[in-house]
Amino acid sequence: MAEAATIEDIRAARARLAGAARRTPLLESDALNALAGRRVLVKAECLQRTGSFKFRGGWSALSALDPEARKKGVIAFSSGNHAQGVALAAKLHGAPAVIVMPEDAPQAKISGTRGYGAEVVTYDRFGEDREAIGARIAGERGLTLIRPYDEPMVIAGQGTTGLEIAEQAAEAGVTEGDVIVCCGGGGLAAGIALALEEAAPGLRVRTAEPAFYDDMAISLRSGRRERCGANEKSICDAIVTPMPGELTFPILKGRAGPGFAVADEEARCAMATAWKHLKIVAEPGGAVALAAALFRREEIEGDAVIVTVSGGNVDPAVFAAALSDYGDAP
Amino acid sequence: MAEAATIEDIRAARARLAGAARRTPLLESDALNALAGRRVLVKAECLQRTGSFKFRGGWSALSALDPEARKKGVIAFSSGNHAQGVALAAKLHGAPAVIVMPEDAPQAKISGTRGYGAEVVTYDRFGEDREAIGARIAGERGLTLIRPYDEPMVIAGQGTTGLEIAEQAAEAGVTEGDVIVCCGGGGLAAGIALALEEAAPGLRVRTAEPAFYDDMAISLRSGRRERCGANEKSICDAIVTPMPGELTFPILKGRAGPGFAVADEEARCAMATAWKHLKIVAEPGGAVALAAALFRREEIEGDAVIVTVSGGNVDPAVFAAALSDYGDAP
Repeated sequence: MAEAATIEDIRAARARLAGAARRTPLLESDALNALAGRRVLVKAECLQRTGSFKFRGGWSALSALDPEARKKGVIAFSSGNHAQGVALAAKLHGAPAVIVMPEDAPQAKISGTRGYGAEVVTYDRFGEDREAIGARIAGERGLTLIRPYDEPMVIAGQGTTGLEIAEQAAEAGVTEGDVIVCCGGGGLAAGIALALEEAAPGLRVRTAEPAFYDDMAISLRSGRRERCGANEKSICDAIVTPMPGELTFPILKGRAGPGFAVADEEARCAMATAWKHLKIVAEPGGAVALAAALFRREEIEGDAVIVTVSGGNVDPAVFAAALSDYGDAP
Repeated sequence: MAEAATIEDIRAARARLAGAARRTPLLESDALNALAGRRVLVKAECLQRTGSFKFRGGWSALSALDPEARKKGVIAFSSGNHAQGVALAAKLHGAPAVIVMPEDAPQAKISGTRGYGAEVVTYDRFGEDREAIGARIAGERGLTLIRPYDEPMVIAGQGTTGLEIAEQAAEAGVTEGDVIVCCGGGGLAAGIALALEEAAPGLRVRTAEPAFYDDMAISLRSGRRERCGANEKSICDAIVTPMPGELTFPILKGRAGPGFAVADEEARCAMATAWKHLKIVAEPGGAVALAAALFRREEIEGDAVIVTVSGGNVDPAVFAAALSDYGDAP
């Protein structure tokens, strides 16, 4: 079966994103390297517009839409980062956007999404069916649904991150090793895997997920999409998907190495480490790849590892608590 | 009188810094622009090695030293950022470094400096004479003193920030306006002013300082070096110098626009704003320029302003308190 997105789609997305999305830096810290026992190169997508890589996918999807459909508007489901990415991309394209968000999403993400001009509809994550709510609104208004990861143009947009990693890692002298990617449904990981295969074949994607939500790691081991977690709690709100995407999994299956799962406390500690040594803001779900580099170092080979910090949209109290618990750690 | 540093010194420093210092990004946030009422381009020197622009000056000075002198080693006085910049630059040059620091400097800065391999000597800021302590140690060991701002090669190193700002602002479509620079002794501001005069004559430096320590603003108004503040408290530990530098002031006198002074609470709020909208870590003294863009907007002209976030080395409790007080502000 043909895969949902190709390297050509990613290159085309990159051309559409030029001048809109930011080429985020690949950061490195002398102190962090010492702490992690090897070079750690950090793709800081928290510095992307809207504070996460999701703006890439949102812009890619909006810019690829038929102009008539774009004029009617778009709709998205999201706990927050995809919401903000689609909202700003829609606003900049002059397209209306409706975002369906769980009512317990971080306040920073809800207000951020409204701040980009989108109409936010909230629902009860444990009682209501967001698909049904979305389908009704989309039908009434003729909106196009933009899925967070099982969407070819979204995967292509996220893949532009991989093209940048390939170039920036080479500039830093790194052409071999693991690229650990924060993983929910797998859109970013799949896009990066496709890009690296072409642009940096010595680099290999590995996914990082929260404990109990390591469905991608389990599925990569078994070779088929497995479900897990569902009713467990995790602080990593952005990536608590219970099952790999239908389009993203086949892309990752043949390309990704073994996945990582990290505990919430490891993610919170990694948030403090990113704050201290990199001077960037990572949200819990955006810190799991760095947590893997710090706390699973014996499962990593080589002198250098690349990690994504995929987003930085976090409520201040959650962040302050992580600093209070781990800010004085090395 | 000839000035202490020239554009040629800055260009030469840039060549020496290539491959060692980082070209930090010029960040921009859609939400921050809306908040500030104009475009705000943020030169994120907190993402520089050692977490502040001071690595530039440290590397510039170390790399310009006579090899024999370098081998004997260097000494510096600093509340923390210059300390870390010199310490890492010395380590990478294989040179011993002694850093004389006030015993009440932020713990993050003291331990950071030790972490870069320097020998730290602490003193009582209110009782002991750091110059005397430093002179004794330097004499005993034949060390070269590297001053934090009144040092031509240090000013030249900091000026490389200005060359980058000129290029990055032009890429962002900004060739006219104010560049607000966090200011202690004035090394960064003087270096940037020299660089912009040559590389972006439509951009003008303006200094930002903490209230009670706005000696540069007062001196720029009167046209001569004035002393102030001295025994007041300020949270902006990095930039509580009581008087402009002897070498930096003549450079700024003819080139800088009117200076800003901001209250500690404005700096703390700007720290939270940088955390929220830019996803970067600013220390109090590194946030005063952003505070000026946010709270003195009527004293700024034009559609765009550039600010430096000059450092991000701050104790976790100080940062968490700023988030607690201002993290929910827009």
